[in-house]
Amino acid sequence: KHILIVPGDGIGQEVTAVGKKVLDKIAAKFGHTFTYDEALIGHVAIEATGNPLPDESLEKMRKSDAVLFGAVGHPKYDNDPSAKVRPEQGLLRMRKELGLYANLRPIKLFDELLNASSIKPEILKGADILFFRELTGDIYFGEKGRKNNGDTAYDVAEYSRYEVERIARKAFDAARTRRKKLCSVDKANVIETSRLWREVVQKVALEYPDVEVEHQFVDATAMLLIKDPRRFDVVVTANLFGDILTDEASQIAGSMGMLASASIGDGTGVYEPIHGSAHDITGKGIANPLASILSAALLLDISFGMKAESEAVINAVDKVLKAGFRTRDIADQHTPADKILGTTAMG
Amino acid sequence: KHILIVPGDGIGQEVTAVGKKVLDKIAAKFGHTFTYDEALIGHVAIEATGNPLPDESLEKMRKSDAVLFGAVGHPKYDNDPSAKVRPEQGLLRMRKELGLYANLRPIKLFDELLNASSIKPEILKGADILFFRELTGDIYFGEKGRKNNGDTAYDVAEYSRYEVERIARKAFDAARTRRKKLCSVDKANVIETSRLWREVVQKVALEYPDVEVEHQFVDATAMLLIKDPRRFDVVVTANLFGDILTDEASQIAGSMGMLASASIGDGTGVYEPIHGSAHDITGKGIANPLASILSAALLLDISFGMKAESEAVINAVDKVLKAGFRTRDIADQHTPADKILGTTAMG
Ligand SMILES: CC(C)[C@H](C(=O)O)[C@@H](O)C(=O)O
Ligand SMILES: CC(C)[C@H](C(=O)O)[C@@H](O)C(=O)O
Repeated sequence: KHILIVPGDGIGQEVTAVGKKVLDKIAAKFGHTFTYDEALIGHVAIEATGNPLPDESLEKMRKSDAVLFGAVGHPKYDNDPSAKVRPEQGLLRMRKELGLYANLRPIKLFDELLNASSIKPEILKGADILFFRELTGDIYFGEKGRKNNGDTAYDVAEYSRYEVERIARKAFDAARTRRKKLCSVDKANVIETSRLWREVVQKVALEYPDVEVEHQFVDATAMLLIKDPRRFDVVVTANLFGDILTDEASQIAGSMGMLASASIGDGTGVYEPIHGSAHDITGKGIANPLASILSAALLLDISFGMKAESEAVINAVDKVLKAGFRTRDIADQHTPADKILGTTAMG
Repeated sequence: KHILIVPGDGIGQEVTAVGKKVLDKIAAKFGHTFTYDEALIGHVAIEATGNPLPDESLEKMRKSDAVLFGAVGHPKYDNDPSAKVRPEQGLLRMRKELGLYANLRPIKLFDELLNASSIKPEILKGADILFFRELTGDIYFGEKGRKNNGDTAYDVAEYSRYEVERIARKAFDAARTRRKKLCSVDKANVIETSRLWREVVQKVALEYPDVEVEHQFVDATAMLLIKDPRRFDVVVTANLFGDILTDEASQIAGSMGMLASASIGDGTGVYEPIHGSAHDITGKGIANPLASILSAALLLDISFGMKAESEAVINAVDKVLKAGFRTRDIADQHTPADKILGTTAMG
């Protein structure tokens, strides 16, 4: 199997290096041969080539069996809203070009981290949510621009029936293998794309009579995720709502540093932490590599069908946490100083 | 002073009745004369007139000194995405016609409710956030519709410079009277309206050198609100992001049933709970009226400049909570059964 490593920006570099080591270890242990290549994206790609996603990177992605991805972004562009070339354009183009329409974000708390969250342990215990975020449509990819001499900005959100159908089917299929509950999140009381979304999900639901479906508004969901996370099993939602709700839901898992994601669709799958480039801690060697390691686990499972290998990785994470080791973001006041590890040591 | 009562749908009816009683009590205690009228909006208006905001209601709003509002919405429309006439249209038209561009949502935890939240008390203690949600622009009011024989839906999000400027100024002004910190929330790494938003806020910030400004992405904010709510003072954001984030932030205050809001702008101010019509508990007499009561307090303060009167209401709420009385939504396992009150008794 050929794996492309795409570290991108900021702590992306540090954490994917650790994710790759874990893949190497799995190959050795289970007798697989993994070959690797690297490619540029984001700010580092702009610096090197002027392009946030050089064609060469895209070609390498297409030709590989899976991509282990880091993060993109840089404060330089964030503070300059008028920048024409931006790291995020590389990420979005990759998603579109590879047809990565389904972004899976499993939110599950490792028992040992029950106290690391700002949410009460008795609210969290047993929470286990699988998000399906649509990833190639919505306001992310519609026409955008300025008018009235630049005084008015606009963004068009758009969804077509088939786009909602295919992500809904993936979410329903997953619900069948879990607790058979699906919550579809929209803002159908205001937004037309949400009304189409709800219509289509209602229709697809007819094919899955064994799955219990509810429709929630995004504002209510943002509240319910914190109030009662255990009420959710599979959640399916549009690109922008998914972006917001999954970051919020990271608090259910104790820290953003724990959350992996899989982006899948028509071709090569891309696996990445949901945390970003985190320039405030870049280069300090303190970033939590567990999200990248768990992304590698998702890669093994989903792109390579290697269940046992994937579970071995997850069990290793569990064991390390049980042994009391923590990176800073998941440490609490009871963690002894010598158990607080940096990125490489945690790996 | 002439106050228009607009109960709307669901528990809106039950809670505004209590809010009005509190206004009456204040008038009696402080020697004011308040006169009242009522008007229809939402589902009840559709049932009575076919129109979610009859012109007569709008005229009454324009002529009154302030509006005490309930909620709009009905499950009937939520389950039928193709309904052409919807209760929410009444609410949105009211906001637009009255020029209510600034929606203030204060998030403050009453000490007594420290344990009512799903968030840990040590994370919450002292949290005090004032949201400024833009209320008459964004994807709520842009063109929306279908194309490709109804197979594609679209919504246009739009902001003009002056719209961002006026809400930013209101937020900066408020920050000056508080802890002098302002967080502007956008998604400028992806969305053009957000880039305009950030540009304008950066510019307005120059007029307020004494206020410390930060810009956060909406996804990161959804996470940070739960992880560390005390880092926020004033938060200013667009209509859709504000809708989502303030519902989420209701968990900081223990319950959505505690949160009041003020919608202000060019003319009459409108005061309403941030909870919705809540048809699941409608008619049961168990809805928490405190959000409506606290909305009345905001009304007294902001529209009538009656500070002492407003504080009298807030103190009364505090006293009742200190005496141990709770509605169900804010009760915890230690609340004795005889202290759990219904809507009217709590009033
Ligand atoms: C970096 C940004 C463009 C991206 C997004 O909004 O999709 C990120 O937040 C994510 O969730 O992967
Ligand atoms: C009812 C709905 C249209 C409304 C909104 O989205 O603005 C509500 O959620 C609110 O926050 O006032």
